[in-house]
Amino acid sequence: MAKRLIPLFNRVLIEKIAAPSKTTAGILLPEKTAKLNSGKVVAVGPGCHDREGKLVAVSVKEGDTVLLPEYGGTEIKLGEKEYHIFRDEDILGTLHD
Amino acid sequence: MAKRLIPLFNRVLIEKIAAPSKTTAGILLPEKTAKLNSGKVVAVGPGCHDREGKLVAVSVKEGDTVLLPEYGGTEIKLGEKEYHIFRDEDILGTLHD
Amino acid sequence: MAKRLIPLFNRVLIEKIAAPSKTTAGILLPEKTAKLNSGKVVAVGPGCHDREGKLVAVSVKEGDTVLLPEYGGTEIKLGEKEYHIFRDEDILGTLHD
Amino acid sequence: MAKRLIPLFNRVLIEKIAAPSKTTAGILLPEKTAKLNSGKVVAVGPGCHDREGKLVAVSVKEGDTVLLPEYGGTEIKLGEKEYHIFRDEDILGTLHD
Amino acid sequence: MAKRLIPLFNRVLIEKIAAPSKTTAGILLPEKTAKLNSGKVVAVGPGCHDREGKLVAVSVKEGDTVLLPEYGGTEIKLGEKEYHIFRDEDILGTLHD
Amino acid sequence: MAKRLIPLFNRVLIEKIAAPSKTTAGILLPEKTAKLNSGKVVAVGPGCHDREGKLVAVSVKEGDTVLLPEYGGTEIKLGEKEYHIFRDEDILGTLHD
Amino acid sequence: MAKRLIPLFNRVLIEKIAAPSKTTAGILLPEKTAKLNSGKVVAVGPGCHDREGKLVAVSVKEGDTVLLPEYGGTEIKLGEKEYHIFRDEDILGTLHD
Repeated sequence: MAKRLIPLFNRVLIEKIAAPSKTTAGILLPEKTAKLNSGKVVAVGPGCHDREGKLVAVSVKEGDTVLLPEYGGTEIKLGEKEYHIFRDEDILGTLHD
Repeated sequence: MAKRLIPLFNRVLIEKIAAPSKTTAGILLPEKTAKLNSGKVVAVGPGCHDREGKLVAVSVKEGDTVLLPEYGGTEIKLGEKEYHIFRDEDILGTLHD
Repeated sequence: MAKRLIPLFNRVLIEKIAAPSKTTAGILLPEKTAKLNSGKVVAVGPGCHDREGKLVAVSVKEGDTVLLPEYGGTEIKLGEKEYHIFRDEDILGTLHD
Repeated sequence: MAKRLIPLFNRVLIEKIAAPSKTTAGILLPEKTAKLNSGKVVAVGPGCHDREGKLVAVSVKEGDTVLLPEYGGTEIKLGEKEYHIFRDEDILGTLHD
Repeated sequence: MAKRLIPLFNRVLIEKIAAPSKTTAGILLPEKTAKLNSGKVVAVGPGCHDREGKLVAVSVKEGDTVLLPEYGGTEIKLGEKEYHIFRDEDILGTLHD
Repeated sequence: MAKRLIPLFNRVLIEKIAAPSKTTAGILLPEKTAKLNSGKVVAVGPGCHDREGKLVAVSVKEGDTVLLPEYGGTEIKLGEKEYHIFRDEDILGTLHD
Repeated sequence: MAKRLIPLFNRVLIEKIAAPSKTTAGILLPEKTAKLNSGKVVAVGPGCHDREGKLVAVSVKEGDTVLLPEYGGTEIKLGEKEYHIFRDEDILGTLHD
């Protein structure tokens, strides 16, 4: 059985959404920006402490659909599945219907 | 149907205004600065926390016409339309009639 | 009609003063420092927040004549006129008769 | 007899887990990400002081199974055994069954 | 008539002292360090705000004779005279008889 | 007679321990990591002030056996003996039997 | 007559001690570390303000014998004598008999 990963600090574990086609996901990423992609948030870290010592929670939550930057993130594999880890601050935004 | 993007932190979603001609938009960008451009703010993030933990709102709002820097920003596509994401602090100013 | 630009943060909109001759403007910029120049402040941004969250106003005001650094600044065009945008902190000083 | 190492600041002493096979550890790292690896926390430093002078404890503890970044860490040997030292902030997350 | 420059922030306007000879100025700068030089402070800026928002005055004053670093500073000309602008923190020290 | 050095700030004066053999020191540094080494703390500086103005003491003390990074440190000689100076934060950990 | 230099901020004016021989100064700097050197503190600046606005005094005082780093420092000449200016934080330590 695959292990479960709990990210540290403001890291976010993301399962990328397969290259979307216009009719199903509503998002069309043409050739030149094909590396930009969206993903589903699987797990989030507890956040980081600011300079006052207060914990700042991660700005996305489990289940969110997010828009990811073209570069960055760390590719990992848990069991059979491939995931990416991004820093909270590197996620561009959340996608909503 | 295209998804809607809500930017994170101090990011701003911008729809660039088509290359202006002098008579319609009142802005003439000559050849050498043609890459400088203006855009319409479509959505803004919630802002960033400063070192005291206070949320600092983004300095532009939905509907603003803004002057953009020559370089920078991330090109994305939602549905059929092309957008750019800029950090609040990279937007040069707001344009008014 | 040309649009009006309101700079963001501590940016300053400047209209450069045409290359001065000694008799009219009193400033002589010889060949080797010819790129150094002066300008008139057209508009200023609201300033930046310091780390305590307090807004720090821009240190020049509309109408000021300023000495500009040799390099830096962003060239823009509003209507027929050419302007430059500088960060407040990059302006060398104010010029007085 | 091998000496025992107590890490300083937010350093973490880690014993890497031998390249896992799917059936025993439940983690499959395919060829291209084979350098990513997991390890067991052997000892942790006392943490670092934040800007308010408060000690911030390390976010993992002895016995934790952690996911390590592809690069980074310092390889050391104590007695016969090989270990790695990572900064707390460079550890990607903790692994749980 | 030449304009007068009031420096901004912690900038210092300096008139360099002509290459000194031992008998008149008491300072001998040999060949290899000939670029090091001294100058007279003509005008100082108001200072910079520290992180607490308090204005920190410039550490030299009009009339001071200062030792300047070998490199750095911005060369400007006001009327017929040549000046240099240095940041307060780049001035090495003050010279006294 | 050799002079005694009192380090400044968070510097630590270290006398490296001769390349250990397994039987005497219990630490075996194989060929590839042979540059990693341990040392004995001879003297420590008073520490550095943090941003609140409080003195933060050095985290090791005279007599400690420490694990040193592969690179870094400044080699000096006092009298006949060779020493190294490291910043407190660059020392990996303390070694204990 | 040579002028006297009062350093600014945390700068320290140092007169280097001539290459020591073992019998007179007790410090032997062998060939490979010959560039490391010691010096006598001639004058110190008032110190720098920390982020709380408090003046932090320089950690050495006039008359101290100090160990200097291999590189760095600014070479100057006052009258006939050659001096070096170092930042307080770049001095390695103080030397005592």
